[in-house]
Amino acid sequence: MDRILIPDIQSSPDTRQIPIDKVGVKGLRYPIRVKDRQKGYQHTVGLFDLFVSLPHLFKGTHMSRFIEVLNEFRGEISMEKFQEILEKTKGKLQAQSAHMNVEFPYFIDKMAPVTGTPGLMSYTCFMRGALADRFDLIVGVEVPVTTVCPCSKEISEYGAHNQRGLVRVQLRFKKFFWIEEIIEIVESSVSSEVYSLLKRPDEKFVTEKAYDNPMFVEDVVRSALSRLREKNNFPWYRIEAETFESIHNHSAYALIEKDFSPEPDCFQGVTPTRFNGSL
Amino acid sequence: MDRILIPDIQSSPDTRQIPIDKVGVKGLRYPIRVKDRQKGYQHTVGLFDLFVSLPHLFKGTHMSRFIEVLNEFRGEISMEKFQEILEKTKGKLQAQSAHMNVEFPYFIDKMAPVTGTPGLMSYTCFMRGALADRFDLIVGVEVPVTTVCPCSKEISEYGAHNQRGLVRVQLRFKKFFWIEEIIEIVESSVSSEVYSLLKRPDEKFVTEKAYDNPMFVEDVVRSALSRLREKNNFPWYRIEAETFESIHNHSAYALIEKDFSPEPDCFQGVTPTRFNGSL
Amino acid sequence: MDRILIPDIQSSPDTRQIPIDKVGVKGLRYPIRVKDRQKGYQHTVGLFDLFVSLPHLFKGTHMSRFIEVLNEFRGEISMEKFQEILEKTKGKLQAQSAHMNVEFPYFIDKMAPVTGTPGLMSYTCFMRGALADRFDLIVGVEVPVTTVCPCSKEISEYGAHNQRGLVRVQLRFKKFFWIEEIIEIVESSVSSEVYSLLKRPDEKFVTEKAYDNPMFVEDVVRSALSRLREKNNFPWYRIEAETFESIHNHSAYALIEKDFSPEPDCFQGVTPTRFNGSL
Amino acid sequence: MDRILIPDIQSSPDTRQIPIDKVGVKGLRYPIRVKDRQKGYQHTVGLFDLFVSLPHLFKGTHMSRFIEVLNEFRGEISMEKFQEILEKTKGKLQAQSAHMNVEFPYFIDKMAPVTGTPGLMSYTCFMRGALADRFDLIVGVEVPVTTVCPCSKEISEYGAHNQRGLVRVQLRFKKFFWIEEIIEIVESSVSSEVYSLLKRPDEKFVTEKAYDNPMFVEDVVRSALSRLREKNNFPWYRIEAETFESIHNHSAYALIEKDFSPEPDCFQGVTPTRFNGSL
Repeated sequence: MDRILIPDIQSSPDTRQIPIDKVGVKGLRYPIRVKDRQKGYQHTVGLFDLFVSLPHLFKGTHMSRFIEVLNEFRGEISMEKFQEILEKTKGKLQAQSAHMNVEFPYFIDKMAPVTGTPGLMSYTCFMRGALADRFDLIVGVEVPVTTVCPCSKEISEYGAHNQRGLVRVQLRFKKFFWIEEIIEIVESSVSSEVYSLLKRPDEKFVTEKAYDNPMFVEDVVRSALSRLREKNNFPWYRIEAETFESIHNHSAYALIEKDFSPEPDCFQGVTPTRFNGSL
Repeated sequence: MDRILIPDIQSSPDTRQIPIDKVGVKGLRYPIRVKDRQKGYQHTVGLFDLFVSLPHLFKGTHMSRFIEVLNEFRGEISMEKFQEILEKTKGKLQAQSAHMNVEFPYFIDKMAPVTGTPGLMSYTCFMRGALADRFDLIVGVEVPVTTVCPCSKEISEYGAHNQRGLVRVQLRFKKFFWIEEIIEIVESSVSSEVYSLLKRPDEKFVTEKAYDNPMFVEDVVRSALSRLREKNNFPWYRIEAETFESIHNHSAYALIEKDFSPEPDCFQGVTPTRFNGSL
Repeated sequence: MDRILIPDIQSSPDTRQIPIDKVGVKGLRYPIRVKDRQKGYQHTVGLFDLFVSLPHLFKGTHMSRFIEVLNEFRGEISMEKFQEILEKTKGKLQAQSAHMNVEFPYFIDKMAPVTGTPGLMSYTCFMRGALADRFDLIVGVEVPVTTVCPCSKEISEYGAHNQRGLVRVQLRFKKFFWIEEIIEIVESSVSSEVYSLLKRPDEKFVTEKAYDNPMFVEDVVRSALSRLREKNNFPWYRIEAETFESIHNHSAYALIEKDFSPEPDCFQGVTPTRFNGSL
Repeated sequence: MDRILIPDIQSSPDTRQIPIDKVGVKGLRYPIRVKDRQKGYQHTVGLFDLFVSLPHLFKGTHMSRFIEVLNEFRGEISMEKFQEILEKTKGKLQAQSAHMNVEFPYFIDKMAPVTGTPGLMSYTCFMRGALADRFDLIVGVEVPVTTVCPCSKEISEYGAHNQRGLVRVQLRFKKFFWIEEIIEIVESSVSSEVYSLLKRPDEKFVTEKAYDNPMFVEDVVRSALSRLREKNNFPWYRIEAETFESIHNHSAYALIEKDFSPEPDCFQGVTPTRFNGSL
C-alpha cells in the first residue's frame, strides 16, 4: 500500500555505470548468544556491520532490510549460522554478494595456575564473512598476554622488563574448531598467559614462569605459527603480536601472514568507524 | 665497545625457518612539518609505525634503530621524502623490505561561502609506504561532509534528514598531487561541504545548497569515483563514505575500490593499536 | 598456610602518613544481568572499576579481593544490589569507603512510530556508587537523539540542518525508578527520537516531526530539566546535550546541573583509561 | 545589514526561567604554539572546548563567535594567555562566565640515561580554565612510566612483573611553573622513567634501576604527593596512577586529591565526546 503512496527512491535507476562493492549499515550494537565450549552457549554483546554489493543500475540499497535480517537471527551467532545469515541478506536485498562483520567479547572461566581460584577472562573475538559465488569466513581472536624481553634479561644483572601484550590471530579454516583452541595456542606461545585473579602463590608462579620464558614479539608470532601449522586446519592466517613496552611509550609489533588457500581474498578493508577529533 | 660487553640477543640465530613479514615499532607520536599548498609547509603531529621484514635466520630486529631513523628525518614528512626514509630504514636494519605508516591532522584555511569569513578546517591524512624491490605508496585523507537523504526529502512534505559523514579516500598515484585536490573532489561530491565557521548568511546558503543536492552514501562514492577517474593519475583507489545517520544510532556506509595497477599489493593489514576493555 | 610462606607486602606498614582516597582495579569486562522493565532482566556486558580508600598506615591494598567480590555477585547488577556489593567490598578490604563504577549497553525493543515494526535500540548506561558512612549512588544514561537547528530552519527558504546528538543524564534519586523513564524524558525533549529500524512511512513521519520541532542544545537541556524536575524524585542531576553538527566538524554542547541535596558529593573524578597515542 | 534580513533566533527571549551552566563548541582541532622550557616554544595540535554560561532569558548562544575568538588567538596557547582568551570570550558572548579546555601532546627531548642518545618523548597535557568573578585554571599532564611490583619481586625467586603505567597530575598553582617540573616530579616517583630510544647499555641500566625500585600504584601517588607538597606552589591537586598490569587484563589504579584552596571549585564535569557503537 505505502509502496503506491510513497516513492521508492532507492529502486530508481542510476545511469553512471558504477557498481558499488559494499553498501549497508555499520556500527550496530546487538545482544547475542554465542557457542561456548564449557557451557553450551554464552550471552554477550556484538558490534555489527552488514553490507551487500549494488549493481550499477540501482541508485541505492534498502538499509532497513539489513536490520530486519539481524532481528530475525537475533540471539544466535555462530560460525555455522554465518552462511545462513548471509544467504538471507543476499536474498532479501537481491544482491550478488553479502558481507557481515561482528565483534564481541567472549568470556572464559580460567583457574589460577597454583591455587586453582576461578576467574573470568574476556577475549575480543570477531568474524568476517562474505557470500558471493562461494562462502568465505575469517574468524579472529585477540588474546592478552605477558612477554618478558630476552635482551633485557640477558644484559641485566637482575630483573628484566616485561609487559602486557595483545596477540591477534585471524584465520580461515577447513573444519569447525573452538575459539578456545586458538586461545590455547596463543597462550602457550608467550612468556606467560594472563589471568583475572591471582593469589600470591599464583603470582609467584607466573612471575617465575615468565622470567624462564623470555620472548620477543618475533618469537611470539613464530611460535604461534608453528603451532597453528601443526593443526593442518587453517589454509590462511595472519598473526599479529603487539607488546605495550614497559620501558617505552610505544609498542613493539610483529606480523606474519601465510596463505595456502587456492582462492583469492574476497574481502576489502572496511575502515573502523571513527568520529570527531581523535588524532 | 659495549658490543663486546653486552650480548646482542637480537642478532643470535633462529632455527625455526620462519621469516617474519613485518616487525618494528608502532604508535609513536612525533611533531612533523608537512607540505602545504597555501603556505609552503605547516606544523602538525604524526602517529607513526615503522617496520621491516626479518629473514628466518635472525632471532630479532633492533628496535632502537627505527627511532634513530625517525630522529634523523624529524620535521620533514612528504610524499617525496617517504622513499628516502624507507631506504634509510631498509639499509640501517639490513632488511629486504621496509614499511612506514603515518597519520596526521592537516589544516586548511577555508572561507565561509557567502561572507568569506575565514575558518580553519582539520582533515585526517595518512600515508602508507613500502619499499622492497620496488617502492609503493598509498596516500589517504578523511573529509568530513554533509549529506541530505534523497529518500527522506522525496517522501516528506517538508524537511529531510541530514547528517555529518566522513569520506575516506586512499589512492596510489602516478605523479605528484596536492592533498587539497582530493579534498576538493570529495567536497564537490556531497550534499554540502563542512566549515568551521559560518555566519547566518552562510548557514542559510549551506542549508539550501544541501537540500538542493540530496545524496545517498551510494551517490557520494560514485560521484567521487567519477571525478577521481577523470584525473587519470590514480591507478588504484578505495573510496569509503560513512554517514552518521541522524535518525538512527548506526551509520550508513558504502565502499568502492578500483585497481588498474599492474602490480600486486605489497601491503598487509596492520590492526590499529587497541588497549584494554573499553566497552 | 601460604600466608606463612609468602610474605604479604601489601600489609606492611607505611610511614609517610598519606592516606589514599581510592585504590583498586579498573577496566574489567564482565558479563552481567540487569533488570529490564519489559522482560524482567536482560543479559549484557559491563565494564567495571572497583576501589577502596586506604588508611595512611598500610602500604597497599589486596587487588585480588576485588575480583573475588565481582565473582561472587557475577550476573546480578542493579540499583538495589549496588549497596550490598559495596558493603561486601568494604568489609573484605577492611576499608572505610568503597567505590564501584559500571558501564554497560542496555537494550530496549522499540516500535517504529507508524508501521510499528520492531527494532532494538542500544543505550549506554552507567552507575557510580560510593559507600562510606552513608551510601551514595549516581545513575546515568546516554540517549542518542535527532535535533533540527531552529536558526537554520528560520533563515532558510527550505530545509534545515539536523544531526544526531547524544544526551547524557546523570542523577541521584530518592526512590527506585526505571532507566526507561529517563530515556522517555530525554526522547520527548528533542526534535525526534532515534530508531534502529524505520520503514518509509516511519521515515516520513520522523522527518516531518523533527522539522516541526526544531531545537538547539540549549532547548534540549532546558526541556529535559523541566521534565525531570516534575518527577520530584531527583535531588541532583547533570544533563549534557552534544550534537554532532552536520554543517561543522565539531559539536555543539550544553550542560545544566542542579543540586538540591543536603549532602556534599563524595565522588572524585576518575579519568577514563586511555592508552598510547590517542591525542 | 544581514541582521535586518536574517532573523537572530538565538537572541529571542526564553520564558522557561532556566539558566544554562555551559553552552558552546566542543571537539575543535587547532594547530597551536605552546611555551617550551628548552626552545622557547614548540608547535603542536590542540583539541578545544569553549563554553559560556547563558542567562535564563536568552534562547541560545552564538556558536560562531567561539570560533572567531579561537581564530584571533590562533597559534598562542599558554597559562598566561588563558585568562585573556576567556575575557575575550566572556565579552564577545556577553556572558557571566566563560570556560575553555584544551588538550595537546607536548614533546620533550630526552637523553638515554647511559649513552646520552637523544630521543623525543610525548606527554599529553591539558588546561581547563574558567572565568566568572574570578579566574580559575587547572593544568594537567599525563606521564608514561614503568612500575615493578614489590609483591611479585618479594615472593619470587627471580624476576618481578612490571609494566607501563600512566600518571596523571592536575593542579591549581600560585605562581608560574614549567610543565617539565611536574614531569620530573612524576618521573622521580616511579620505578623507572620511560624513554623513546634506549641502546643496550641504557636498557640494562633501566631494567636494573626499576628492579631496585619496586613500587605499587599506592607508592607512586604517595611519592608524587610528597614531592608536590614540598614545592609549596599548588593549593589543589589530584594525582592518579594507572598501571596496565602485565599479568592481568585490567589496570591497577590509585587516586589522591588534596585541596588547600579557600575557594570552591567552579568546574563541572564535561563528559568527553563519544560517538556511536564502539563495543
